[in-house]
Amino acid sequence: MIFASDNWSGAHPAVTQSLERHGAGFAAAYGASDIDKAVERRFNEIFEREVAVYFVGTGTAANSLSFAAVNRPGGVVMCHREAHIAQDECGAPEFFTHGARMVPVEGALGRMDPGHLVSELGRFRPGFVHAGQPMAVSLSQATEAGTLYSVTEIAAIGEIAHERNLAFHMDGARFANALAATNASPAEMTWRAGVDILSFGATKNGCWCAEAVVFFDPKQAEQFPYIRKRGAQLFSKTRFMAAQFAAYLDGGLWLELAAHANAMADALREGIGRSAHARQAWDTRSNEIFAVIETATAERLRTEGATFYDWNAPHDMPGLVREGEGLYRLVTSWSTERGDVDRFCDLIA
Amino acid sequence: MIFASDNWSGAHPAVTQSLERHGAGFAAAYGASDIDKAVERRFNEIFEREVAVYFVGTGTAANSLSFAAVNRPGGVVMCHREAHIAQDECGAPEFFTHGARMVPVEGALGRMDPGHLVSELGRFRPGFVHAGQPMAVSLSQATEAGTLYSVTEIAAIGEIAHERNLAFHMDGARFANALAATNASPAEMTWRAGVDILSFGATKNGCWCAEAVVFFDPKQAEQFPYIRKRGAQLFSKTRFMAAQFAAYLDGGLWLELAAHANAMADALREGIGRSAHARQAWDTRSNEIFAVIETATAERLRTEGATFYDWNAPHDMPGLVREGEGLYRLVTSWSTERGDVDRFCDLIA
Amino acid sequence: MIFASDNWSGAHPAVTQSLERHGAGFAAAYGASDIDKAVERRFNEIFEREVAVYFVGTGTAANSLSFAAVNRPGGVVMCHREAHIAQDECGAPEFFTHGARMVPVEGALGRMDPGHLVSELGRFRPGFVHAGQPMAVSLSQATEAGTLYSVTEIAAIGEIAHERNLAFHMDGARFANALAATNASPAEMTWRAGVDILSFGATKNGCWCAEAVVFFDPKQAEQFPYIRKRGAQLFSKTRFMAAQFAAYLDGGLWLELAAHANAMADALREGIGRSAHARQAWDTRSNEIFAVIETATAERLRTEGATFYDWNAPHDMPGLVREGEGLYRLVTSWSTERGDVDRFCDLIA
Amino acid sequence: MIFASDNWSGAHPAVTQSLERHGAGFAAAYGASDIDKAVERRFNEIFEREVAVYFVGTGTAANSLSFAAVNRPGGVVMCHREAHIAQDECGAPEFFTHGARMVPVEGALGRMDPGHLVSELGRFRPGFVHAGQPMAVSLSQATEAGTLYSVTEIAAIGEIAHERNLAFHMDGARFANALAATNASPAEMTWRAGVDILSFGATKNGCWCAEAVVFFDPKQAEQFPYIRKRGAQLFSKTRFMAAQFAAYLDGGLWLELAAHANAMADALREGIGRSAHARQAWDTRSNEIFAVIETATAERLRTEGATFYDWNAPHDMPGLVREGEGLYRLVTSWSTERGDVDRFCDLIA
Repeated sequence: MIFASDNWSGAHPAVTQSLERHGAGFAAAYGASDIDKAVERRFNEIFEREVAVYFVGTGTAANSLSFAAVNRPGGVVMCHREAHIAQDECGAPEFFTHGARMVPVEGALGRMDPGHLVSELGRFRPGFVHAGQPMAVSLSQATEAGTLYSVTEIAAIGEIAHERNLAFHMDGARFANALAATNASPAEMTWRAGVDILSFGATKNGCWCAEAVVFFDPKQAEQFPYIRKRGAQLFSKTRFMAAQFAAYLDGGLWLELAAHANAMADALREGIGRSAHARQAWDTRSNEIFAVIETATAERLRTEGATFYDWNAPHDMPGLVREGEGLYRLVTSWSTERGDVDRFCDLIA
Repeated sequence: MIFASDNWSGAHPAVTQSLERHGAGFAAAYGASDIDKAVERRFNEIFEREVAVYFVGTGTAANSLSFAAVNRPGGVVMCHREAHIAQDECGAPEFFTHGARMVPVEGALGRMDPGHLVSELGRFRPGFVHAGQPMAVSLSQATEAGTLYSVTEIAAIGEIAHERNLAFHMDGARFANALAATNASPAEMTWRAGVDILSFGATKNGCWCAEAVVFFDPKQAEQFPYIRKRGAQLFSKTRFMAAQFAAYLDGGLWLELAAHANAMADALREGIGRSAHARQAWDTRSNEIFAVIETATAERLRTEGATFYDWNAPHDMPGLVREGEGLYRLVTSWSTERGDVDRFCDLIA
Repeated sequence: MIFASDNWSGAHPAVTQSLERHGAGFAAAYGASDIDKAVERRFNEIFEREVAVYFVGTGTAANSLSFAAVNRPGGVVMCHREAHIAQDECGAPEFFTHGARMVPVEGALGRMDPGHLVSELGRFRPGFVHAGQPMAVSLSQATEAGTLYSVTEIAAIGEIAHERNLAFHMDGARFANALAATNASPAEMTWRAGVDILSFGATKNGCWCAEAVVFFDPKQAEQFPYIRKRGAQLFSKTRFMAAQFAAYLDGGLWLELAAHANAMADALREGIGRSAHARQAWDTRSNEIFAVIETATAERLRTEGATFYDWNAPHDMPGLVREGEGLYRLVTSWSTERGDVDRFCDLIA
Repeated sequence: MIFASDNWSGAHPAVTQSLERHGAGFAAAYGASDIDKAVERRFNEIFEREVAVYFVGTGTAANSLSFAAVNRPGGVVMCHREAHIAQDECGAPEFFTHGARMVPVEGALGRMDPGHLVSELGRFRPGFVHAGQPMAVSLSQATEAGTLYSVTEIAAIGEIAHERNLAFHMDGARFANALAATNASPAEMTWRAGVDILSFGATKNGCWCAEAVVFFDPKQAEQFPYIRKRGAQLFSKTRFMAAQFAAYLDGGLWLELAAHANAMADALREGIGRSAHARQAWDTRSNEIFAVIETATAERLRTEGATFYDWNAPHDMPGLVREGEGLYRLVTSWSTERGDVDRFCDLIA
């Protein structure tokens, strides 16, 4: 009953087998091998256009280097106040951009409110150097709150960004979960909705270590090879990452794995919905669940072997948790087993 | 006949199997799993003392973050003029240290000359802010020229560093090859000779992606967890790296693989020594060979399928290459096969 | 009727004369001249202890380099949400610290609320690298809202900082105004209340360009000469700054000038208090006034030659400005003339 | 007999008077005042074209921010090995560019050799990320060795830079001395010879603190206001700098002052030429002289009150200084008096 995080899961057998298959023999280093090139072409297919793809080692690197690619002096990234880039990356986006600032935008349930975004952007007058200048808008899909933006919502934010000549970035650490939970295609959820740069995460969803920065306008990536190398994110044996992506993207495996994680979350949501001792803090749609649980129940669950994290209530939901209750986050993954979910639901009933 | 670089090799089957074995099930992320801890203990055994070990994704990251850990404002790293950190890392050490400078020290065949080191250090008077201040001395073992420092030579440089209160760093991208080529133990070649921080490379020698920063004084590493995370080098599923190291360090496999690479290089050196159309540019001892080859011969070798790089002659060896000749680098690896070496030697004879 | 900012004023005649007097002849550069040394001793007298003083060219430099001196990787500075360092320095504090973050703390009227400070600090658990780590607490005295912290309030915040081993910094761009408005001595308002580093501003209060970073524990400043030079803030003819400080600090001129500015603000406050068309948005005590004025009146004042800025209402005072009104900031300075103030008060009556 | 450095001189009376004149009254801050605008127009006149001018506080800031304006990831600045930016700025250019490297180019007597420049540039293959990428060529005029580039020589280097799409920067800390020593106009010595950005120094030549970055193509400066503010180099009372420039540039004062400094240096050169105990180390043309002096004589000069610095012999002039001799640098300035020069020449005769 491990619901701590999807990064507690391991690697899918197909990924492991691909690593084994590609482990033999010699291949050009630094992204020049055949499998590197094949995976790049696969990304073009998936996104239905020519894209520029760069493998990096961590989601933090994908986000931070994305901003480095579009940074401006005194630069500002607009993001939700709970965004991973603002809360959970130890200042890496700031570090790689030499001090760009992550400016928090309000919005319910992990989603930027377009009105607040416009209002925050309005605080930066062109040419007023004291405040600095916006350079990008970034959203997370799925969000850190387990919710999703619709394609229409994404496009609305993209329009706000582009009207002001700002890059539009999507942190897709759980991009596959977002796709699997909707009918949108990868293209619809990204560049057709105005996204310029995607942090494409595969690590949480069945790979070992496979992240990519996808530029939908390859021209914007011209300096990226240098940015990545200077950022110590150019791996020598890149085929170890290409091999993971090859298996991950083959025949829709990535979407199947994400669909499984989401289905396990659905089952958990249902179980929590039936419980007399717990309730969803808010409704989520991807593989993350936020539950208000009686603390005695939570303790008992942990005693029985369930693993999940305490969570802080969002600042705009003050009455969420009552006396004798706690807020907890549960995350499912590609490797979550139905038996564990059922057992958890029985225990919480 | 791939002699382009040891990073053109793949992963050793034991490494692949370890990844497979550790791929199943759940484990705590970010370095907290059992195998992470076990590998940390293994490093203690290998170095015969308590060390602080941090996994990172690339050798460039290992070097750059090492310097970040001991940096000073206006800081200077003393290194050989051909050092990888100075020539081949796209300014990453400078980037991660916010502008520390890599100051080149002269020395024959890739090895810093202690006299030149002292003389260069002498240019920095304490408190004279205009010049900046040294903060570390860094050497590569094996060197970029395929040569080795003896333990005594390392200790002599270490003494120069410590007398001036400078950190002493070793770039061990080919550390195993250096050990395998000498009788020194890991402890003798590092902290017993004064080394404070080691970039411990395993990628080139049979892993996929496994590098570590080893602090011999764990106190010097106190801020390193933050330095690594801010540098986007904290991987979530760290057990993918731990699993590689576990196999790599198990029962001396790492030294066997390096010994094999060195032996293949010995055979190449011998073949080149017998050739009427080629000669060693200088004698090397690890898995790198620098050969002066008649250009016609080199072309023929390439036509026959041999892969190796053109190389620039060191600036202190002006008459090295004559008309009709070229300088080339050949690198062997854990996966170099005897048959390929023999065929190459036959072709060059 | 120039109330736009105190940095619209010029230089006091005594400062100009000092520059003239010290302009002749030769003197050692880079802070080594007699007058540089004399001013350093004067700072010791003023603060009643040995301090380490470093001249820099701008308040932004003083703040940014202060943080660079005490920075930690993934570092965080706690400051009021309206702090100059967070809102008005184009990311310079972030730039000079390679990405440290300015985390906003709530509090009424420009003053950090100690409870909120503790609560924000509580979000950073020791060793939890994802969030980064606090490294300093910074307050502005006088605040950006024209209010003051009492010495007791400063000490309370200092205690919170020191309990957590954080540096305690004071942005004293208007330090003299704060002193002149209270009975506190420079020592009482700073190190006796726990302040470790002071950005000592003199530019706004009668100098041309004279700012200093004052370390109350000189040991904390050991690396600062290099930090300042690397930050391009070591001036060659430092006596141009020393000469300004010499006149400024001579015989209490600095406090007289600040007292004058404050008195002019008092007169403005009184006039606004009597007005039927305006009121103070909140009560201030230094040389800044925030007034809610009927927009028609404000327009008329501007037509008559008054200069002052529009201001945004603090986010925690939603009902402050009513239909037909605006919020404006008025700043007096050492050179504000009584006649201008009276005329303004007449016009607004 | 102060020949230590031209930055040991004070401020010219005309500069002081201008400061006094402009010290009264109010003026818009941050570069928006009338005198700021007037000085900007004066720069257009002097350079016979529209330029973009930005005041900064130090020569190190001018150089460092210039490079920040044209930087590329993994960037490299080509400069003479003795360039101030490489030797004397504590890594500030590296700091402000987040790790760009200053790559030394050989050349006799402080002047880059175009052949060596081409050869060093040749080491950077387009797209080869490991080495990084050139982004600027920078020369000093007058050079750190007291020599000058002819306009033709400047143009030749500019052509090399522009053929490779590199910015061409001139460190003009002693720009006036260079102009005064030749018949070239400011335009001829800069943009007509291909210079893109000039660090225009006035501090050493009669100002207190007045440096400017001049962009000959204003479009290249688009982001510079933010770069300067983020770099803590936007002064509030900019008219203190404008007032200095106004006097300095009025009626050719700047060139008169430089001509005086050069003439004093000529007299020193002549005196040294006549001496039996000293000789010029090499011929110089601006206000710097490098002299080989018998150490006994040098000691006697110092006893008599002469101030000058010991200097290191250039690495390409090994036999320059013989037993019993030393190498010394002497610098004259706008305020050097003929009497001091004559007395020095008498003492050395």
